[in-house]
Amino acid sequence: MAQIKPSLAKGTRDFTPIDMQKRNFIFGTIKEVFKKYGYQEIQTPSFENLSTLTGKYGEEGDQLIFKILNSGDYLSKVAVENYAETGSNAFTPLIAEKALRYDLTVPFARYVVMHQNEITFPFKRYQIQPVWRADRPQKGRYREFYQCDVDVVGSESLLNEAEFILIYHEALAALNLNDVSINLNNRKILAGIAEVLEKPSLLIPMTIAIDKLDKIGMDGVLKELKERGFLDADIHLLRPIIQLAGSNTDQLHTLKHTLAKSAIAMDGIRELEEVLSLVEKMDKEAAAKVQIDITLARGLNYYTGCIFEVRANRVNIGSIGGGGRYDDLTGMFGLKGLSGVGISFGADRIYDVMTELNCFPPTSDKSTQVLITNIDPMAFDFCLSLLQKLRSKNIAAELYPTNAKLKKQLSYADSKAIPFTAFVGQDELEKGVLSVKDMKSGAQMTTTLDELIKRLS
Amino acid sequence: MAQIKPSLAKGTRDFTPIDMQKRNFIFGTIKEVFKKYGYQEIQTPSFENLSTLTGKYGEEGDQLIFKILNSGDYLSKVAVENYAETGSNAFTPLIAEKALRYDLTVPFARYVVMHQNEITFPFKRYQIQPVWRADRPQKGRYREFYQCDVDVVGSESLLNEAEFILIYHEALAALNLNDVSINLNNRKILAGIAEVLEKPSLLIPMTIAIDKLDKIGMDGVLKELKERGFLDADIHLLRPIIQLAGSNTDQLHTLKHTLAKSAIAMDGIRELEEVLSLVEKMDKEAAAKVQIDITLARGLNYYTGCIFEVRANRVNIGSIGGGGRYDDLTGMFGLKGLSGVGISFGADRIYDVMTELNCFPPTSDKSTQVLITNIDPMAFDFCLSLLQKLRSKNIAAELYPTNAKLKKQLSYADSKAIPFTAFVGQDELEKGVLSVKDMKSGAQMTTTLDELIKRLS
Repeated sequence: MAQIKPSLAKGTRDFTPIDMQKRNFIFGTIKEVFKKYGYQEIQTPSFENLSTLTGKYGEEGDQLIFKILNSGDYLSKVAVENYAETGSNAFTPLIAEKALRYDLTVPFARYVVMHQNEITFPFKRYQIQPVWRADRPQKGRYREFYQCDVDVVGSESLLNEAEFILIYHEALAALNLNDVSINLNNRKILAGIAEVLEKPSLLIPMTIAIDKLDKIGMDGVLKELKERGFLDADIHLLRPIIQLAGSNTDQLHTLKHTLAKSAIAMDGIRELEEVLSLVEKMDKEAAAKVQIDITLARGLNYYTGCIFEVRANRVNIGSIGGGGRYDDLTGMFGLKGLSGVGISFGADRIYDVMTELNCFPPTSDKSTQVLITNIDPMAFDFCLSLLQKLRSKNIAAELYPTNAKLKKQLSYADSKAIPFTAFVGQDELEKGVLSVKDMKSGAQMTTTLDELIKRLS
Repeated sequence: MAQIKPSLAKGTRDFTPIDMQKRNFIFGTIKEVFKKYGYQEIQTPSFENLSTLTGKYGEEGDQLIFKILNSGDYLSKVAVENYAETGSNAFTPLIAEKALRYDLTVPFARYVVMHQNEITFPFKRYQIQPVWRADRPQKGRYREFYQCDVDVVGSESLLNEAEFILIYHEALAALNLNDVSINLNNRKILAGIAEVLEKPSLLIPMTIAIDKLDKIGMDGVLKELKERGFLDADIHLLRPIIQLAGSNTDQLHTLKHTLAKSAIAMDGIRELEEVLSLVEKMDKEAAAKVQIDITLARGLNYYTGCIFEVRANRVNIGSIGGGGRYDDLTGMFGLKGLSGVGISFGADRIYDVMTELNCFPPTSDKSTQVLITNIDPMAFDFCLSLLQKLRSKNIAAELYPTNAKLKKQLSYADSKAIPFTAFVGQDELEKGVLSVKDMKSGAQMTTTLDELIKRLS
């Protein structure tokens, strides 16, 4: 075996024990909320047939899919004249039949179609798995990252939308993220605006321009709208909509007035009203976090009804979650007419926000509670029995494996943030007690095993 | 988007909600035991630089590694004259710099070397992640499967070996797998046998032959030994060792006598005695499951001390776990002299054994406990408040999202194995009570929300 200086593949990360404790805390907390709302976990394979993924993410997306080289003598199956003439793009499907999952949505659609006969709809599923993208790595953007999706398919009820708002509120609050905004829009309102302006074909450029309000300001948006083909009369009608402010009730009131001529806009407004009313009935704290935001256009090509986006108010990091309703998830695989709605949590960004706001609880995981030090060979057998008695009470415990210098043993306890160390020497052995040190305060005490167990349980 | 009939990539699986509940039960149970023994979780990326993996698994292994095609116009970086002349094997490194994880051991070695300055040794880690192999798929063998490894590096203490036996015993017992054998051997004893026979160079062929005792019987083993170069005199000494039976004490007694001339064999015997003695002191139930098995040779190229293997006694499926001590895990990446020992759990086989023996608990996961049916629009708001009160008490609950036919709602509850359904009509609304149906017994009762919460908590 040749010796190589080891390195990570570009854009990937190791997760250390401390990282994992925090990540498990995030995923575990979110999962508990999903389950409480009746969602069940599924998993799909890490790689799919390339043909399952190709064409679902646009041309740019196709380029970012990681393809897996066929195994065996794959070149022998390609006619030799192909090599030099075909470019990489045309050559790829000849030597790569499989590809790594790019998101959780397309594999979920495949899953629903393949399992349609065993699924009872509405199907409420969550899925937390890594995805891979051949993006240029940069701060906060990795080539492997986890997605955390929760969707229901086969139900058009707006109760689902309302419950997703509650799920955001409850999961983020359980992560100590209380200062968040849950922004809400509806594609039907955006379509209604384009309809009232008699420019339905400009819906996408219009929403792309409006969506930039945060970044380029009102003047920038208006300039872009003009460049995209909107006239002064259009701008006159659009300006108050883009600048819409005030309470949700006020905003909906203005929209109803401005867009009265558009049936589809009225439909979108009615949907928002119903979602807001349901949330208000179910959880007033959650309702207080919901803000209608007409400029929200997130994934518009895809969504057909409500659109969600969540932001942490005190951290400038972009959205930490989003989602919406899509009317034809499984159509790409031939199963028509199945409406779905879903949201996702941006776990990596949530991790960053929690780090910045110092939201992680001191012990996010049940790690070792007691290190029994190994200081006296005469006490070793007694220590073994202590160790197993602690574990039998479900207390994570370790006995230092050798009779090393005490300093080394204590520094091991420190490095693992073990809160208590126990000592048994000749004296303790004779009296049948333990000396225990609280590693945080430095306080020492003499105690019995039963007392220690009581303290730690 | 073209419509394709969707299919899974060869050798991969979807996991349905029921699969996931069972799998989460297995992984969750094992993790709790790992943590109780002081092991901490890490994760490494799904893909590594190809050079990190190549040459670590033998030539056959290298062929089974899934390589990932470089992104972008990868062909433009290969000199054109290469295409036709180079075979697939030589062409691969030119177009694929990354590869999918083949096991958890090599990435762990890389991790230890790269993080050596921040790790306090002994480093006790567990890792549960999928690995990928381009094997020919067959019953029970997949191209994507989970490994579940637990290792300690930087400690030569045999307490670690003893604790791994306890971990096997405790984790499998928690999975209701009590009828298991934990087989134990030591490479030093095998090396001692070859030494006594004065054929140290034949150690590997000897152990390969002996390892086949189960499959080809004593005559087959002796025949193979002769073919491998062992003489009648060797066979005379080997036969009683291969046929070794009786208690662990008896076997060790015989070995001590037969291999008295070999210092390394005596070392191996002493190690087994110490491990057995430690396990006996710590947990007599675990000790009763340990059987010395001199024919056990699992991964001999790799292990340098104790070797473990676990079998379910009532199911003919091969081993459900194994491991051992290796003296030079990180040497391949330039960090010498770090001894390690570890075991792994074969999660897929454990799943199969538990299915065959019907070991899964009836509810392995906290799924929805109550479905509130949606039968009377007048009661809808009251149902919403019931729903949130149940959830606020940490009870997983759902309200059927539409006023569908009752039969449909009940069949939804059945399909998710929801144990209770609740009904609120005009009558219940007036009295402020619920009608609740136990879906298993069919029994119906009238109850208050508080009573229902008490029953489900």
